[in-house]
Amino acid sequence: YSLSSGSDIRPNVLVLVADDLGFELNAYENNVIKTPNINDLADRGIVYSNAFTTVSSCSPSRSTILTGLPQHQNGMYGLHNGYHHFNSFDEVKSLPFLLHENGIRTGIIGKKHVAPEAVYPFDFAETEENNSILQVGRNITRMKELAKQFFSMQLKNESFLLYIGFHDPHRCGHTHPQYGEFCEKFGNGDYRMGKIPDWKPDYYSPDDVIVPPFVQDTPASRKDISAQYTTISRLDQGVGLIINELKQAGFLESTLILFTSDNGIPFPNGRTNLYNSGTAGPFILALPVQKHKQAVVDNSYVSLLDITPTVLDWFSITYPQYTLFHRDVKLTGKSLLKDISNSDVAFGSHSLHEVTMYYPMRSVHKNGLLLIQNLNYLMPFPIDQDFYLSLSFQDLLNRTQTGADLHWSKTLKQYYQRSQLELFNLTSDPLELDNLAYKPEYHNILTDMQTLLQQWQNTTWDPWRCAPSGVLQDSGAYKLNPTCLPLLNGL
Amino acid sequence: YSLSSGSDIRPNVLVLVADDLGFELNAYENNVIKTPNINDLADRGIVYSNAFTTVSSCSPSRSTILTGLPQHQNGMYGLHNGYHHFNSFDEVKSLPFLLHENGIRTGIIGKKHVAPEAVYPFDFAETEENNSILQVGRNITRMKELAKQFFSMQLKNESFLLYIGFHDPHRCGHTHPQYGEFCEKFGNGDYRMGKIPDWKPDYYSPDDVIVPPFVQDTPASRKDISAQYTTISRLDQGVGLIINELKQAGFLESTLILFTSDNGIPFPNGRTNLYNSGTAGPFILALPVQKHKQAVVDNSYVSLLDITPTVLDWFSITYPQYTLFHRDVKLTGKSLLKDISNSDVAFGSHSLHEVTMYYPMRSVHKNGLLLIQNLNYLMPFPIDQDFYLSLSFQDLLNRTQTGADLHWSKTLKQYYQRSQLELFNLTSDPLELDNLAYKPEYHNILTDMQTLLQQWQNTTWDPWRCAPSGVLQDSGAYKLNPTCLPLLNGL
Ligand SMILES: [Ca+2]
Ligand SMILES: [Ca+2]
Ligand SMILES: [Mg+2]
Ligand SMILES: [Mg+2]
Repeated sequence: YSLSSGSDIRPNVLVLVADDLGFELNAYENNVIKTPNINDLADRGIVYSNAFTTVSSCSPSRSTILTGLPQHQNGMYGLHNGYHHFNSFDEVKSLPFLLHENGIRTGIIGKKHVAPEAVYPFDFAETEENNSILQVGRNITRMKELAKQFFSMQLKNESFLLYIGFHDPHRCGHTHPQYGEFCEKFGNGDYRMGKIPDWKPDYYSPDDVIVPPFVQDTPASRKDISAQYTTISRLDQGVGLIINELKQAGFLESTLILFTSDNGIPFPNGRTNLYNSGTAGPFILALPVQKHKQAVVDNSYVSLLDITPTVLDWFSITYPQYTLFHRDVKLTGKSLLKDISNSDVAFGSHSLHEVTMYYPMRSVHKNGLLLIQNLNYLMPFPIDQDFYLSLSFQDLLNRTQTGADLHWSKTLKQYYQRSQLELFNLTSDPLELDNLAYKPEYHNILTDMQTLLQQWQNTTWDPWRCAPSGVLQDSGAYKLNPTCLPLLNGL
Repeated sequence: YSLSSGSDIRPNVLVLVADDLGFELNAYENNVIKTPNINDLADRGIVYSNAFTTVSSCSPSRSTILTGLPQHQNGMYGLHNGYHHFNSFDEVKSLPFLLHENGIRTGIIGKKHVAPEAVYPFDFAETEENNSILQVGRNITRMKELAKQFFSMQLKNESFLLYIGFHDPHRCGHTHPQYGEFCEKFGNGDYRMGKIPDWKPDYYSPDDVIVPPFVQDTPASRKDISAQYTTISRLDQGVGLIINELKQAGFLESTLILFTSDNGIPFPNGRTNLYNSGTAGPFILALPVQKHKQAVVDNSYVSLLDITPTVLDWFSITYPQYTLFHRDVKLTGKSLLKDISNSDVAFGSHSLHEVTMYYPMRSVHKNGLLLIQNLNYLMPFPIDQDFYLSLSFQDLLNRTQTGADLHWSKTLKQYYQRSQLELFNLTSDPLELDNLAYKPEYHNILTDMQTLLQQWQNTTWDPWRCAPSGVLQDSGAYKLNPTCLPLLNGL
């Protein structure tokens, strides 16, 4: 899994990150949607069938991709934008930081959504910080031109990593109707409204879309999903354009390509949840030297924590020894360039999304089982501003208020109210409705998974690892021996 | 209330902030403790008998002092230090920033605990960021020398503001026993351990201290309080030394002096609470041109939100027009140099303390009544790492576990479990035990106070102003007309 060592070709990396994409891809057995370009990529590589985001929230997830550390360890506890205002710790050594230190050129085009700049420095940056996000994240013609510009400046005796943050298929239209349902009016050519000559939209009838089993099946949700499909056509064509630029610039044979999504679909049980429905997602790895005629499906468990170790391995860079708050920092992900055939574990860690949405959860997927620990579980699960206004959530509110049939696997009340522990068998209960955590026959399994999760929280110095029944003491007399002490608070 | 306009003397400001101090001062009718220097200051000025911190938490409170904006508006939602990692928004125009822009020299000695640097720039800064906090916050000899240095560099035709952040009487010893019970071993002269030649400790018998009514009266709490008294002797002597330096440098006759505390005492019902017991505190204003023989007591309501408007007024600086996240920023505090005799309102706003301690509260004191809205009220009230290890809290835990009499006005369970709304009549119920919020005869009063609080939350663009039963929509189609929309989450 590397370029031949005698070669004088420099290895490169292209990371393609979709925004809020789920399994709406042919490569993941959706045969309604048309995604020929992502198909071509899959046919060159490995399609992971058990890939999970570590946190189903935009900034925290992107911070995980770019640091290899979960949100609770890198400091990006919630969204970066606006008054949410989360930031990674100043001392974090991110992937772009480490690559730069090792003489590898880095670029980002599109959605960044992480900060501060000193932690996430890119040599070439065209992001929402210096552009309209619609121009650099949805205007695939502009994105193509920027990629071309990045490649044209590349010295042949240097390596690069280029990170493309597509803003599609993140919903548009419902909050900013002036741009149209798919931000297509953004492409109308008006002053500062952009133009997307390369986009040939595919439209889908709401009747034809595949409704994920964890979303209610109603006219509203189908309309919502069909709009997603249309923006996915822009994402797919963008992937094709970027890879074509890579090819034209002569780098296709030397570039490791990763394609994934930051978080689950922005539908009920999806984004902001650590349910399987909110965390399982697409993940494709295409190696330049291994060309297939069709996708190789790998059912090993992978997560977004694996991206940083994989990229460092590809560039033969060792993760440095350093500390955060006097604690050693270790990557807990793995390189996908190694044999990972025994991998059946993936961890999750969520603290907030918007700053008002405190709902810390920790989770572990292990071999078809999923354990979730809800730390603020006595309060209702929070709903984000963007999702709230969606057709699908408004539909659930309206149906609940009028007493109409929800056509959903849950009630809104069940969605809001969660147990402290949730344990699901995803094979026999893919809808995650039968909570096994309190069943005596699962006691040992529960304990084993809790131990596994606690060990990971300890290794990654999770500030929440004593919550909600204890307080973490880790300074002064407890500095060498951090301890959870009991609060006697009834939890 | 200003230096005579014909004068060529430049006006100056000295702000003295104690850390976790309550009413343990002679000036507030505690006749056990000896605080002669703060007495002298009080005798030169006004002692406010209804002064309140806006938030009973260190960094959020200091951010309020230094910006005139509540934590939810300036971004300092919780503690700045370590993995808590809260920061004010980059665009906030703080008091030191505005003074610098207006040609007034600024200095800080001692505890800063706010960031980022660009928001809180001081021309002269000796803080925990470039020193041991014990040296610049507790070593009153070192602090005196630094103040002398600051004054010696002062140009006579310029004004200054000097901010002194005493670290006393913040508890020591219980978490870092190597420094001794009062950090007195810090003063033993060992290498880097400091020396405090000027400190003459007063010691108090636990039998003699005054136990605030909201704290349990036990040997443990009395011992804890007596240790506080001893560190207050260091604070008091430090105040004397600093004011003497001011006098020696010739600035006493031109300097407005403010003395206050960042938050309530670190005891049950104190720090981290918005109860009256956690927010009412000392506040002394000494005007150079108004010398009294003894303290003038003023019962107008004042809060730490008033400091920035007062200082700006003293320097005749107008608060600038600007926006945060496209919203106009207005100060909601008042200048104490104006007639404030009708003031009977003070607002409070707390979101977190440590990052794991999410317990947003909003409050309003009005004319002897106090309303508190608890937004995360279904979860137990959180306990901070420092307070947890204190003698007083350990005593409550031990007594609860062994079933011993708590000698306290509450049980631990009552302390943890709070109603969504709490309304107290502080005159008839100073212990804040009789919640009037759900009594029909208080319905109109409750509604009036809720309206007042909501108006303040709207004016200060509180991101939490729709919580916990609604979601705030304030972008896109709602940008011009921010709205709370219902979640139907049962709250
Ligand atoms: Ca996203
Ligand atoms: Ca304090
Ligand atoms: Mg920092
Ligand atoms: Mg920022």
